[in-house]
Amino acid sequence: MRDILPADKARRERVLSVIRDRYRSHGFDEIETPALEEYSRLHAGIGGDNEKLAYNVLRRGLDADTVRGAADDPAALADLGLRYDLTVPLARFYASNRAQLPGVFRAIQIGPVWRAERPQKGRYRQFVQCDIDVIGDDSSRAEAELLVASLDALDALGLEGATVRINDRRVLDWMLESFGFSVDERPGVLITIDKLDKIGPEGVAAELRERSATGTAVDAFEAFLTRPQTREFHPYGERQIRKALPEAAPDDIVAHLVGIGEAVAAGRGSDEVPLAFDPFLVRGMGYYTGTIVELAHPSVGYSLGGGGRYDGMIGRFLGQQVPAVGFSLGFERLVDLVTAETDAVSRAVVLIHDADVPVGELVAHKTALVADGARVRLERRTKNLKALLERSAADGYTSFATVSAGADALELKPLS
Amino acid sequence: MRDILPADKARRERVLSVIRDRYRSHGFDEIETPALEEYSRLHAGIGGDNEKLAYNVLRRGLDADTVRGAADDPAALADLGLRYDLTVPLARFYASNRAQLPGVFRAIQIGPVWRAERPQKGRYRQFVQCDIDVIGDDSSRAEAELLVASLDALDALGLEGATVRINDRRVLDWMLESFGFSVDERPGVLITIDKLDKIGPEGVAAELRERSATGTAVDAFEAFLTRPQTREFHPYGERQIRKALPEAAPDDIVAHLVGIGEAVAAGRGSDEVPLAFDPFLVRGMGYYTGTIVELAHPSVGYSLGGGGRYDGMIGRFLGQQVPAVGFSLGFERLVDLVTAETDAVSRAVVLIHDADVPVGELVAHKTALVADGARVRLERRTKNLKALLERSAADGYTSFATVSAGADALELKPLS
Repeated sequence: MRDILPADKARRERVLSVIRDRYRSHGFDEIETPALEEYSRLHAGIGGDNEKLAYNVLRRGLDADTVRGAADDPAALADLGLRYDLTVPLARFYASNRAQLPGVFRAIQIGPVWRAERPQKGRYRQFVQCDIDVIGDDSSRAEAELLVASLDALDALGLEGATVRINDRRVLDWMLESFGFSVDERPGVLITIDKLDKIGPEGVAAELRERSATGTAVDAFEAFLTRPQTREFHPYGERQIRKALPEAAPDDIVAHLVGIGEAVAAGRGSDEVPLAFDPFLVRGMGYYTGTIVELAHPSVGYSLGGGGRYDGMIGRFLGQQVPAVGFSLGFERLVDLVTAETDAVSRAVVLIHDADVPVGELVAHKTALVADGARVRLERRTKNLKALLERSAADGYTSFATVSAGADALELKPLS
Repeated sequence: MRDILPADKARRERVLSVIRDRYRSHGFDEIETPALEEYSRLHAGIGGDNEKLAYNVLRRGLDADTVRGAADDPAALADLGLRYDLTVPLARFYASNRAQLPGVFRAIQIGPVWRAERPQKGRYRQFVQCDIDVIGDDSSRAEAELLVASLDALDALGLEGATVRINDRRVLDWMLESFGFSVDERPGVLITIDKLDKIGPEGVAAELRERSATGTAVDAFEAFLTRPQTREFHPYGERQIRKALPEAAPDDIVAHLVGIGEAVAAGRGSDEVPLAFDPFLVRGMGYYTGTIVELAHPSVGYSLGGGGRYDGMIGRFLGQQVPAVGFSLGFERLVDLVTAETDAVSRAVVLIHDADVPVGELVAHKTALVADGARVRLERRTKNLKALLERSAADGYTSFATVSAGADALELKPLS
């Protein structure tokens, strides 16, 4: 966890306000859920590996005897926990508040989540997630709305040219079945396929053999993986999707993927579809049931966001199936990428005052400038005036004036 | 704890953005600290009664034997806790990051805090605090900057006419000493005085006698409390302050209080000082060492914020005394008071579409309107169109159009 200092905080708030504004324009509504959720809900098997990383909150009012009796039962020691993502809370929120929400509910959620990960560079145990979700629409329109709004937000942040890798969990399932992998071994096979970018087709085949996956299936899969031109991504469309898959891919899944492409193109007002079909995109979370996407940008080698369909999850809370699809922007990564803009307030003035200026005079000068639209900071004159001016400029101030006792008007000078 | 639905969330974000904007204009810089702080820091005796209300986070990796051995030692079971205020974290932040901060540091902190209070109407266990603090300035300028900025923020929220009750902990100390209360009994006496508004002078004297406070001191105090005209608050200034106190009040404390009034008047650009001296204002927190303030507004009977000097606290973390004064706006109360404004986006359009409109066409219509500056929501046509239109209007949408397959132009109609 970390402290966020003024310059960083200002940049974070600027980025958030751009994202918020774009998502709102696209018809999404912001909601907020509590940081603490019930322990049982956070450990219901939906959160995948993140469940193990949850911070658990000690039940209140436990006496020592109860603690001793419950020593090996975390669920008895803890009744609450800090959320590790915004998806489990959203499903719970929707189930609780459905009657007050529109038929198709488009949610924005921006807030901190907590994971007790091993400390490493650039990773924090508290970080901000920035999610949008469409609940109640099973058509490709839902995916298109998420992607068009997110690409629009990236454009507004000055990160034009982003592209989206796309696949469908059902495609993966169908492929693995057609190669001959059994239902039981498929989750393990997916974990290996997820490493394709890192270890290549031969590495994947070798690891599957080590895992003792069905031999004939591994052979068939390896032959498919190493056939020529398997991983050609462009141009996006039915022909390319079918070419990237074994023969006779199910029509409905292909049509859904094609529909997303058409709608995104229409939404972006361009024939250039910013999508790339990748039949081996996996994404970690177990709750995905359909489309999965990952956001890429030419300026960086890592993903800037991702998401997918999780049509089964709401039902876990509501007892009634409701289709849902979500997209999460990698806010912490975006903040690092977006170049520092100048402060939104164009005039920022430092008033450097002698020690003997009456407080009232000083505050009156400040108020006059604030009323005139400026941002104003008071600084007492120091011996090293140059250092003070440099520090003020670094903090985003654009001009300064010195204030002496009894002075009527201030002479503003630029801080360069 | 509670879920925050779209209309509420939008109002909260609008109020926050007004407050942020005003505080930034007045030269304050926003920072952020983690929600979790070390257990020992949250239980160091600075947080007063709030320490007992802290949510403690179970130490990770505890085995059952360790839990059994530590069953009666919460500090061994928990290594972290959720912050119960923003003041303790600020003091820790300042001590950690001082080298990177200006000589006088003006902080904005806006974020959730958690207290395990007994549930009651209008009180939540997670709520947002909105604090500003000036660290490193012991002059009355610091108090004036806090108050002028906060009154400006209230004005900007449409809550003109707020006033500030003001006192100084040193005034209380000096009074109690002059009446003859011993050092040891003074904290208890303050708790009773804090009830003056509720139980009146006779109630206070009776409770002090019940507490077996020094009899002669209670007599002297009662005589003072019940003298005529004790609680005249206006106009604010030296004459009024001295009149409200026993004779021979210390000059330096009175001068500090008078100085705040002059500077606030100058900062507000008005001779009308929005301050009312109240020698019996106490405020609960034990860490206050000087000025204490409470914000009142004619529209409500409860306080809308408060704060004070806590010159001793930074030293607890830094090992070096640094003066500090803070002010906390009652954000949750403000949100309830501020009347719902219309959405910042003036044009908000609902596109009501038939089921057979191709997804691409629909998304293209949406994009064209978004690009034109509108906020746009898609809604599939329902049998009860009237209900759909009413709900859209309630959600802040201002116009609608129906979309049929192949339609070129949309006819926007007002939603009234």
